Amino acid sequence: MTRTSTLIPAPTEAVALEPTRVAVSTVIFTLRRLADSDTASVVLPLVRRTRDPHEDQWALPGGWLDVAEGLDAAASRTLAETTGLAPSYLEQLYAFGAVDRSPTRVVSIVYWALIRPDDIPDESDENVRWFDAASLPQLAFDHNEIVGYALWRLRNKVGYSRIAHGLLADEFTLAELREVYEAVLGRRLDPANFRRQVENSGTLIPTDHFRTGSHRPARLYRYNQDVELADRGPLDTRH
Amino acid sequence: MTRTSTLIPAPTEAVALEPTRVAVSTVIFTLRRLADSDTASVVLPLVRRTRDPHEDQWALPGGWLDVAEGLDAAASRTLAETTGLAPSYLEQLYAFGAVDRSPTRVVSIVYWALIRPDDIPDESDENVRWFDAASLPQLAFDHNEIVGYALWRLRNKVGYSRIAHGLLADEFTLAELREVYEAVLGRRLDPANFRRQVENSGTLIPTDHFRTGSHRPARLYRYNQDVELADRGPLDTRH
Repeated sequence: MTRTSTLIPAPTEAVALEPTRVAVSTVIFTLRRLADSDTASVVLPLVRRTRDPHEDQWALPGGWLDVAEGLDAAASRTLAETTGLAPSYLEQLYAFGAVDRSPTRVVSIVYWALIRPDDIPDESDENVRWFDAASLPQLAFDHNEIVGYALWRLRNKVGYSRIAHGLLADEFTLAELREVYEAVLGRRLDPANFRRQVENSGTLIPTDHFRTGSHRPARLYRYNQDVELADRGPLDTRH
Repeated sequence: MTRTSTLIPAPTEAVALEPTRVAVSTVIFTLRRLADSDTASVVLPLVRRTRDPHEDQWALPGGWLDVAEGLDAAASRTLAETTGLAPSYLEQLYAFGAVDRSPTRVVSIVYWALIRPDDIPDESDENVRWFDAASLPQLAFDHNEIVGYALWRLRNKVGYSRIAHGLLADEFTLAELREVYEAVLGRRLDPANFRRQVENSGTLIPTDHFRTGSHRPARLYRYNQDVELADRGPLDTRH
């Protein structure tokens, strides 16, 4: 071993002294109908890694926290840089910090977001691809576990908030709303029961507009804007 | 300015290159009845800071994340080291990372916990004191904001989970349960309405035991253990 100045730490010391680093990642969901299916699926974009660790594997969009930016800003920036997406709704999900989740020590602050299919730009980047959340390949790091947790939160949230609105246009039919719930919950819902529950909930306002097409006209609804999309509590004012 | 070796960065460079550090803090609530009051209050322990920044101000118990420990472990360790408390229920709350929340860049992963009054050890440490959550002094860093967010989550959680159990003995009267809700929600509840709602919820099981004392005997209840105390979803298995 070459002896150098004591001011320069030996390689093993350098590793031991390497600090914990902070990254941000975002799980962003939308709905996509497969060409040969009458049901929609929850899908999310993944980015192919171009360097080690996990080179060529798919990973959540994200990056390092800059020392001069807040967590929310870092999530928005890294999502835009990697995928071009700019969702209106972005919420902190959880901090993942298991010691062995990466070869170096990385705490990842994970955000999640919903985006409407119509708000996804058409750009194509061969290193970004949308995957069905229910059938993912082996992802880099602990990202399968992170997506699983985000799906669990999404399923919980559709039950007690207007979160489904983040996947719908401003006006929608009850069939379209039911399709969101079916995709998120992963099971079919009885149309008559669903209609009754939604109409009794008081969260929807019927409009005078109808969706016309190959079926009989269906009334369009919108959400009651007096109710918050998803109550984040006092942190809502921190942006 | 003294010229030194170029291997040693000048002070301004050192500051600029200082990495983001990760800390953990815990908000731990219990109930306390004031001697001259017939209502209970939500209280939490704070630790007096013995060094800058914010020397002598009160702060949440916590400390630095060790490079070789997970986030949950760090929260438990730093809580025990600063307060001696070892709650059975500890949940990640939120990551606070505003750029200006500390003189250096610190991302703080905040946990929250509930502890039963009977589980608090008697030790006295002059640098640890319990404060009424509703009337805190100016705390160090952004800790007032953090406590406010934790209180908001606590109030939300009592509404749809068995979280109140974390503040009660295994068997309790309906009056004791109502006292928890009143302290958390900060308002009086009608005893007859409360009894009806709780009995209809199916989460309580009446026992054959009664609390006797100066009032007429009151039946003791316990929570239905088939229901999770608070569903953390897939992350529950990560310990």
